[in-house]
This record gives sequence, C-alpha cells and structure tokens, in this order.
Amino acid sequence: MRLAIVAKVLALVGAVVSLSMIWPLIWALCDGTPDRRPFLLSIVAGLLLSAGLFMAGGGSSVRELGTREAFAVVTFSWIVASVVGGLPFLLAGTVPNFTDAFFEAMSGFSTTGASVLTDIEVHPRGILFWRGLTHWLGGMGIIVLSLAVLPFLGVGGMELYRAEVPGPIQEKLTPRVQQTALLLWGVYLLFSFLEMIALMLGGLDLFEALTHTFATMATGGFSTLNGSVGQYGSAYIDGVVTFFMFLAGANFVLHYRLLRGDLKAWWRDGEFRFYLGLTLVATATITLFLLWRRNYASPVEALRYASFQVVSIVTTTGFVTADYELWPVYAQVALFFLMFVGGCGGSTGGGMKNVRIMIVLRQVYGECRRLLHPQAVVPLRVGGSVVNRDVVAAVSAFVIAYLGLFALFSLVMAGLGLDVTTALSSVAATLGNIGPGLGGVGPSHNYAFVPSAGKWVLSFCMLLGRLELFTVLLLFFPETWRR
Amino acid sequence: MRLAIVAKVLALVGAVVSLSMIWPLIWALCDGTPDRRPFLLSIVAGLLLSAGLFMAGGGSSVRELGTREAFAVVTFSWIVASVVGGLPFLLAGTVPNFTDAFFEAMSGFSTTGASVLTDIEVHPRGILFWRGLTHWLGGMGIIVLSLAVLPFLGVGGMELYRAEVPGPIQEKLTPRVQQTALLLWGVYLLFSFLEMIALMLGGLDLFEALTHTFATMATGGFSTLNGSVGQYGSAYIDGVVTFFMFLAGANFVLHYRLLRGDLKAWWRDGEFRFYLGLTLVATATITLFLLWRRNYASPVEALRYASFQVVSIVTTTGFVTADYELWPVYAQVALFFLMFVGGCGGSTGGGMKNVRIMIVLRQVYGECRRLLHPQAVVPLRVGGSVVNRDVVAAVSAFVIAYLGLFALFSLVMAGLGLDVTTALSSVAATLGNIGPGLGGVGPSHNYAFVPSAGKWVLSFCMLLGRLELFTVLLLFFPETWRR
Repeated sequence: MRLAIVAKVLALVGAVVSLSMIWPLIWALCDGTPDRRPFLLSIVAGLLLSAGLFMAGGGSSVRELGTREAFAVVTFSWIVASVVGGLPFLLAGTVPNFTDAFFEAMSGFSTTGASVLTDIEVHPRGILFWRGLTHWLGGMGIIVLSLAVLPFLGVGGMELYRAEVPGPIQEKLTPRVQQTALLLWGVYLLFSFLEMIALMLGGLDLFEALTHTFATMATGGFSTLNGSVGQYGSAYIDGVVTFFMFLAGANFVLHYRLLRGDLKAWWRDGEFRFYLGLTLVATATITLFLLWRRNYASPVEALRYASFQVVSIVTTTGFVTADYELWPVYAQVALFFLMFVGGCGGSTGGGMKNVRIMIVLRQVYGECRRLLHPQAVVPLRVGGSVVNRDVVAAVSAFVIAYLGLFALFSLVMAGLGLDVTTALSSVAATLGNIGPGLGGVGPSHNYAFVPSAGKWVLSFCMLLGRLELFTVLLLFFPETWRR
Repeated sequence: MRLAIVAKVLALVGAVVSLSMIWPLIWALCDGTPDRRPFLLSIVAGLLLSAGLFMAGGGSSVRELGTREAFAVVTFSWIVASVVGGLPFLLAGTVPNFTDAFFEAMSGFSTTGASVLTDIEVHPRGILFWRGLTHWLGGMGIIVLSLAVLPFLGVGGMELYRAEVPGPIQEKLTPRVQQTALLLWGVYLLFSFLEMIALMLGGLDLFEALTHTFATMATGGFSTLNGSVGQYGSAYIDGVVTFFMFLAGANFVLHYRLLRGDLKAWWRDGEFRFYLGLTLVATATITLFLLWRRNYASPVEALRYASFQVVSIVTTTGFVTADYELWPVYAQVALFFLMFVGGCGGSTGGGMKNVRIMIVLRQVYGECRRLLHPQAVVPLRVGGSVVNRDVVAAVSAFVIAYLGLFALFSLVMAGLGLDVTTALSSVAATLGNIGPGLGGVGPSHNYAFVPSAGKWVLSFCMLLGRLELFTVLLLFFPETWRR
C-alpha cells in the first residue's frame, strides 16, 4: 500500500467537498441566516485538510494507483467527505455533537437519508441545501464507482458491468474512469434538470425543487419538510417523484443507451425487467391489502400510496407519503424484505441489487436441475446471457456476506438496548442505504434517540452497504496494508 | 418416476407408524383411559392404508429404487406418517380437526415440537406418549436420511457426509442404507437409554423419563408438562437434558467413532468445534447480559438458564426452562439468529446446519482473498479438509434457498394477519424445526391461534426444513414425475 498516493486522491475529494459548500454558502448569504459563518469556516477547514493531505502525498502520481490503493481510496473518500461535510452541521449547531454530524453527513454522502434531526424545518436553508447536495454528490460518486471502478476490482460480482461500460476499455484506470464518469454524469445531470423542472411545474420553488431532486436522483431521501414528500399532499408531485425514483434505481448505462437512440435498451435488460416486475408485483399486492383492510377508500388512492412507498423502498430512497407502520402486516413485511433487494447495479440505489437476487435465484434453480440430471453441465444464464462461474461464486459470497453482516450488526444494536424490530430494521435500513425502517426508526420517527455507539455502528453499516461490502472489508486484512 | 415402487416403500412406512401405535395403546390400556379405542382404530386404519399402498405397488421390487423415486419416497414418507400418526389426535378429540391433527403429527415426525395444544396435561398418557414417540421415530428417520440417503442424492451439499458413512460403500442403495441405519440407530438407542436412566435418577417416573428422552434425542421438544422442562425446577434435570440435547445436535457418526474407541473423534471434527464454540459464545454473552440487566441474581443461575435455552434453540429442540421473551433484547435476537444455524449435519437437529454456515463463511473469506490476489487459486478448506467447488456451490444455493423460503413464507404468514414478529419467527421456528419462536408463538404460547391456512403453510415449512429443502422442492418440477 502506497499511502502517499491514497493521500493525494483524498486531498482531491476533500477539496471537491469543501468547494461544494460554496452553494449552500450562497443560499445562506442570500437569506442572511446565521449559517454563513459555519459554512465559511468549514470551507477553510476542509481546504486546509486537503492541503495537508496533498502535501503528505508528496511527489507521487495518481496514475500509479494500484488495486489495493484503489480500495483504500474508495473507502476513505466517503469517510473524508463525511468528516468535512459534517462540519457545517456541527458549527451551525444543527446537531449537538461530532457523532451526530458525522452520522448525518455519512447518511447524506452514502445516499441513505437516515436523519438525527427531530425538527427539520427549523434549520436555515443553507443547511438544508447542503444535506440535499451531500446526497447528490454521493450519487455522482456511486455511479462512477459502480460502473467504472468496482467492475475492474471484481468486487462481489461487479464484473457483470465490465462489458457494460460505454467508451473504450483501456489498461490504465484513470482515463477510463474519467470518460465513463463524464458520460454517465451527463445523464444524471439531465435527469436532475428534468425532475427539477417537473417539480417546479407542480408549484415547488427553486429551493424545494432542487433539494428534492438531489434526494431523488441519488435515491437519498433527505427532505426539507418534516412530513417528507407526503407533506405536499399532491398526487402530481408524488407521481413525478415516483417516476424519477424509479429511474434513479435503474442502471444508468441503460439510460445512456436509451438517450443514444436505443429505444429498447430498458426492456432488453434482464435486470430491468426483474426490477420492474418486482415493483409491480409488490405494488399490486400491497394495493389489494390496503383495499381489503380498508386503509384507503378508493383504489386510485391505495395505488398512489402503495406505488410511492414501494418504489421509495426498493430504490432505497426512503421518502415517505404514508406511515406504512399503520398498514397491514403484509405491507410492512414486504417493504422490509424489499429493503434487502434494493436497486439495480449501476444505479444510485443501494441494497443487494436486483441482478444479484436474480443470479442467486437462478443458482438455486440450477441446483435443483443438477439433482435431477447429475451429469449435465448447464451454464447459468441470467437475462439471456451466460454468467461466469466465478461471478456466480462472487455474487453468492456477496449475498451471504450481506446477510451475515446484517445479523452481526443487528446483534450489536440489540446489545445496545434497541427493541427487536428497531434493531433489525435500523441495520437493514442503513446497510441498504434506505433511511427509514420499522419500529423506533419507522417512517414517522428518526435516528436521534439511538445511543452514540449505535450511531457509529449504523454509520459504518451505511459505508459498508454503499461500497459493496468487500471494498470496506478488505481494509481489515493486514495484507492490504503491506507495502 | 415409477410410482409403484414409491407406493411399496410408503406401505412399509405406514405399517411401521401404525404398529408403533401399539406402545401408546399399551399405556392407554394400563391406564384404562378413553384413548384406547382411538389408538386401536388408528392402527387398523393405518394398516388398511398400508395394505392399499402395498397392493398399488404390485410386483415392483424396492431394490429398483432410482434417484427420482428416492426423492418422492422421502417426502411422502413424512406425509404418510403424519396422516396416519395424526389419526389418534383426531379420533381421541385431542384436537378439533384434521388440520390440527396433521400439524401436531408433522410437528412430531419432523422433530419440530410446535404444538396446537393449549393445555397439555389434561390429555391421557397414551396420547402424550404418542407425541413423544413421533419425535423419536422422526429422529431415527432423520439419522438414516442425512447420513445414508441424502449424501448419495447430492442434496444441498450433503455429499460432505459421503465419506463419513461407516461400513462399506456399495453401488445399490438398499444394503448400504440398512447397514448404516443399524449402526447409527444403535448409538441413538444407547444414548436414549442413558438419558432415560439419568432422568429417572433425577426422580422422573418411567413415563416422563421416556417421553422427555424421546423429545431430547430427536431434538423435538414436545413435553408432557405445560411448563416444559422448566416445570421440574431441577438444576439436575436441566443439566441432563442440556447435555443430551447437545449430543443429539452433533453428528452421530462422531458418536459412533467415539464409542468405537476413537477418543478424539469429537475434537478432530471441524464442525463439532464450530458448534461447540458457537454454543459457548452465545451462552457466555447471554449470561453476561442476564447478569447486567439483573434478570438473575447469581451467575450460576444465569448460566444455567442461558445454557439451557441456547442449547435448546441451537440444537432446534425447543424445550424451555425460562421465558426468553422477558430477557434482554440481545438474548432474543441471538436466539432468533441461532434458529437459522441449527445443529450439525448427521444429527437429529434442524436449521441450516453448522457445517453449511462454516462453508459459506469460508467462501466470503475466500472472496476477500481473491480480490487481493486475483491470480491465486486457493482451494476452500473447512476444518482441515478441502471442499469441492461443486459442494460449495450446492451449499450456498442451499443457504440462499433457505433464506428465500423464509422470506416467502413470512410474507404469506403476514398476509394471513399475524404480526411482524410472529410471522417471521413462526416461519423461522418451523422451517428450522425448533418449535417455539417469538411474539405470538413465543415460549409461553402455542400455535393453536394460527388460522388453518397458516397451519398448513407451517406444516409445509416443517417438511421442507426437515428434508433439506431440495428433496421437497424437486417434486414441484414436472421432470421429476416423468416416466
């Protein structure tokens, strides 16, 4: 591990995050609110930290970045961003201590949307804008990570996306990352712009349209309202947000292809069909239960709230328009399991990802076939294409690691005194980068009451989930650090 | 599929179950209780059914049994046993309908121990003896199944036990099954005898010693007392039962080797060490929480109740001496996750089995190593021996199928109106063949309140879990039934 190179890349991350705070600073200056000073101080502190890291990097060149350094860079990027990005929350008194500041910032950059704020609307617009922007920046980071970096590092079956990357594949990591990033960020920017316009047409002002767009496109979920998107009480806004959440939870390479004129890009993709099918089945069954148990009088209303909550959870956004804890148990259990599924690979969504679920289900089916035909060697096909045996093994290791870590951290949270439902769902909701869970962290609650140690555990869960587990787990191997 | 052969084997199963009812009939006759007639009628009905099956079998020879027939025989053996074995419960008025009778009998033969009886002690001794005996017969079936049949059918990694089978390995299934069965049943019989003596030394009469021995050695959990083993209030009885539950949850091949003079047989086995380690860690941490939260005043008492409950759950027995729902949340969550682990392969315990957990954890570790050394080909070792890649794939498919079926049936139970905790834990407790879960099916409750449809679902879960999933799942493939 050449730490100098790692430091140099982290200096860049720190500088980007620091300079991004200029935008909330502008809001603060326009509003003349007391969060001006905290933002100014945070920018200076962040830039000083970056300068320090840059100097620690010495004369090393970023182009020498190797595999092990890449793992360290990825993990520490999110940590550095959360430390720097949490400063304004601490300095402006948004949160009482560093733990909460780090939790809120990590929740932002990991596009989770779990909040420790009990009353969101009392905070100045600069702070609220920054919360949204952390989502949006985190989302940008994820797109490039999941489609341009991790496929080449072979993490948990991300090789599946190696062929999907647009642009020429080259030997050196850096040029490829740059090219892929620029193309996909173009799509991200375009969709963000379209959602912003659509929300403004629905009556939202620029500030609210922007912050909700940030939280949607990144599948984050921070809202500027205590009642989340539901507070608008508008079917139009619900519809717009549902649509863009669904897009944000799908593979951005498909969107890129579609924009390039390949009109069947979505439909041809097996994962997209699975994702759409799962969303439709969950929405339909929950709608039926809502009508059966008379939670809503009209089918249209039931469908509206069911589809919003299903899409919000499966894409791991975490916006809410209804308190699903008051819904039939079937809906709660279905939403709980959807938290594990998550979005598609190459999206800003979290969770295990639809493609991995497809692969492991195919593996189970293939195992049944093997018992009937022990001699036959049948390659595993997902969505029409053959999946390499090594990728299948990597994917099942990922799924098992995900569920194992869920069990481990649920035990830790239970040990910290949370009740069973809250302990399990707080881990599911942070490891899957969703935000709201069930029980004490349900849609009408927040994470403020979680003990400090628990906030650190859950922050770590957000990081693990966001970086596809193995990226972070590797750093606990001594070999990774060897020179 | 040659159904005639299947029918012929099932005739044998039906006859064995019917004739086994002679034992409870003897108790009923001695006691002069009204369950004499029901047992007599059930024996006659069971023998008539067997005769019918035998005739349907025609002139086919059992020696021609092929792979697909073997799967059908295994699954339908448990179903035929539960239909015949449930008759006395129905005819004696122990339960109000056939659903409950089938549930109670399946719970017995699958060594689950989930009961629909609200007051156990009011029933005559014949009926209570029969409940225990269904466990003991089910346990005998499982030992031969997991060590002599499934390893050769390749179900979910059971090939691991192929080398472990004592006695010569032959081409034909039948002679090998017979030889293995006899050797291991000898161990089962010996341990049962020892436990019975130990319990009688603790003051239990022959009836109670026998029924509790049946439920212990089969890791079943049916007691003859409303308060389960806890009602004795005896540290000695708790200790004896804990010890024999632990033995019953370990691989019987190891016990056989130990009895043959290989004194290190237990310790040399990787799975046994894992099983012991897990039990010790769970017991130690739960004991500490019980002391910390002052559930018990003395460390000895905390250890006594913690160890009993941990061993009871991990071996999937389901006896209780304390209501763990009143324990710290950590203990509840730990016990919930232990339900998924279960006993060792080749034991009478259920769950996913320790060896499978070991293999998938090693697979996750191996995946991390692969990311650091992409070129290296490192074979997966568990407990010192290399595990074939196909077996690893079969095992991860098993683990994923187990968790997928858990999710699916939890959704169904939630749809039937059970609360979240009860829905999830009822499926975990039946799929893992444990018995008591959390919430509505917690240690101080029973399954009587579950709606009829739910009882059928849970009966199916018991069958699935007991027969290593794939044995049952295969029957849903049309190919299995082709001639």
